[in-house]
Amino acid sequence: MNQEPQRALADIRMRVQRDLTQYLATQTSYLGDIGSELVPVAEAINSFLLDGGKRLRPLFAYCGYLASGGEDDEAIIAAVASLELLQACALIHDDLMDASDTRRGRPSIHRWFEGLHQNEELLGSPAHYGSSAAILLGDLALVWADQMLHQSGIGEAALLRALPVHDEMRVELMAGQFLDIHEQALSTQSVARSLKIARYKSGKYTVERPLHFGASLALADPAKLEKYFAIFSEFGLPLGEAFQLRDDLLGVFGDPSVTGKPAGDDLREGKRTVLMAMTSDRANEHQEGVIDRYFGAKNLSAEGIAELRSVITDTGARQHVEDLIDKLTSTSLDALNRDEIQLGPHTLLTELANTAVQRTL
Amino acid sequence: MNQEPQRALADIRMRVQRDLTQYLATQTSYLGDIGSELVPVAEAINSFLLDGGKRLRPLFAYCGYLASGGEDDEAIIAAVASLELLQACALIHDDLMDASDTRRGRPSIHRWFEGLHQNEELLGSPAHYGSSAAILLGDLALVWADQMLHQSGIGEAALLRALPVHDEMRVELMAGQFLDIHEQALSTQSVARSLKIARYKSGKYTVERPLHFGASLALADPAKLEKYFAIFSEFGLPLGEAFQLRDDLLGVFGDPSVTGKPAGDDLREGKRTVLMAMTSDRANEHQEGVIDRYFGAKNLSAEGIAELRSVITDTGARQHVEDLIDKLTSTSLDALNRDEIQLGPHTLLTELANTAVQRTL
Repeated sequence: MNQEPQRALADIRMRVQRDLTQYLATQTSYLGDIGSELVPVAEAINSFLLDGGKRLRPLFAYCGYLASGGEDDEAIIAAVASLELLQACALIHDDLMDASDTRRGRPSIHRWFEGLHQNEELLGSPAHYGSSAAILLGDLALVWADQMLHQSGIGEAALLRALPVHDEMRVELMAGQFLDIHEQALSTQSVARSLKIARYKSGKYTVERPLHFGASLALADPAKLEKYFAIFSEFGLPLGEAFQLRDDLLGVFGDPSVTGKPAGDDLREGKRTVLMAMTSDRANEHQEGVIDRYFGAKNLSAEGIAELRSVITDTGARQHVEDLIDKLTSTSLDALNRDEIQLGPHTLLTELANTAVQRTL
Repeated sequence: MNQEPQRALADIRMRVQRDLTQYLATQTSYLGDIGSELVPVAEAINSFLLDGGKRLRPLFAYCGYLASGGEDDEAIIAAVASLELLQACALIHDDLMDASDTRRGRPSIHRWFEGLHQNEELLGSPAHYGSSAAILLGDLALVWADQMLHQSGIGEAALLRALPVHDEMRVELMAGQFLDIHEQALSTQSVARSLKIARYKSGKYTVERPLHFGASLALADPAKLEKYFAIFSEFGLPLGEAFQLRDDLLGVFGDPSVTGKPAGDDLREGKRTVLMAMTSDRANEHQEGVIDRYFGAKNLSAEGIAELRSVITDTGARQHVEDLIDKLTSTSLDALNRDEIQLGPHTLLTELANTAVQRTL
């Protein structure tokens, strides 16, 4: 653990939080002026966004900006902070599609509005009200992300350079999300397909594109920008896949007090991850039986979770995924060893990479 | 019926269709390169967007552009065409929230993917697959709208002027949508609240903001822009409300072959509109009984629809809404009688206004 870059990352995180708080305060008052019925909308997004989150995408974007030669700049902080609102859209809609009850240890947005419907004794179905609210709040967060970027105060030229990267990142996010829900509906699991989903949902959306976004804010020269794009792809794609693999492990073995999700949540949900595809590939007949019986079972018991965890460990899939995370992280970090990456940003990116992939089980 | 402006509007509509077709062809190929699983996503949005629609928002935006002194310009056509993708997002998510089976006489997006799930014998719940796909396709359409605007080829200064208008329009849309779903859950109906929803969903989103968007593409001078914004608010807000009131009438009395929705769809759904709020305000005890029995009843029969229609007519609410449409339209058209609006655009806007509010029952 390197304290200096950790402090620097914490400082960026704090400034991102400050700007999100300020932007949301303005929007809350805007919505309140339209109608008091919209106050819960603003409150829910405020609470969802400000009460937690690692701010990985703003951090990657800001470090990408610094590594491309950008100078510390408050407007750039606001621009990269907007990525958290995009992520809020993704999470709100994801929780609804996965029917997840919680997020960061609190009710997911559709559950929040379901509860509000019940408390206020509104008409109709609470679940329907909750899901409609989650659809609209996700949409609103996506629009706010855009608006926060546009109003960040960065220069016009920087904004115009950032827009195409931002658009491509968002198309890739939605494409990755669709591949993911489609994967859950197929009759077989596949390591190759799950790795592709990890590439779009995490490699590109979480790491590579935020870095490109940051670079586009720093660099006006197209040739230089191309060069940094290439370095950040080499660094970001394997790192993002490693991040997703860590997420797979956390979804199975993670401590609820750390993940904010119930223990073994991905097992109950039957989530098709690279980890589970590898487990299936290696399972013997008995182990296949355990998977068939418990994986994705509603009301999965603690015993069922324990049995599935044993299978994932015993097949060697867990260790293989750990090894793969190490290998991908190492490939990723190698890409930073170039003249183009100065010592300061190098240290920051290394620290951030380790934070992303070494989350506590 | 004035043939010359009708031909001019048809020409703009055709060019909008051409640009949407071209943009979607490029994106279809982009998605196909990511994975063949994404081809149905592209096909569904293509079919949803290209097989129908009046293109009202692009038309208002383009006429707003021309009326503000803008010269005919292909890049501006592409920029305003992007509003149809935003509208596609709104409709896809709206149909999901309303659980509507059809749109423009074809399956809604969630039903389309529900059918695809069944045909391909995928795993899990077809309804869940359908709703997840609709959430993501709506999100994708929202992002594509942005991307199409950014890539339209309009000048950088025009784009930078248009972004804040575009952002505000989208926030207002989502706010209006939330007010609408919240209204459906309240224990009482209210003409005032329903008129406010009409103002946000239609007055602003469908008419006023597209006109402002067009003006912002035409005018660099802030003082001039302010002046046209004011004229277009005066013209657009009452017209948009009239448009929404016409929509209320169509939802109850409309011919399915024209609306593309089943007869009396809003009655079956129990949709709280200005029309229904006015009906409730005027209903006697017997009429209230009919409303309580049939309004929002699942499997509402043709007889129930007929009874409700009689109540809406007999209370005088139907005629009152017709009168209100006339009054709002007349107020709206009066706002065009100014030196700032040249004869050509004046004729176009008048024709477009009449098209928007005089749709066939």
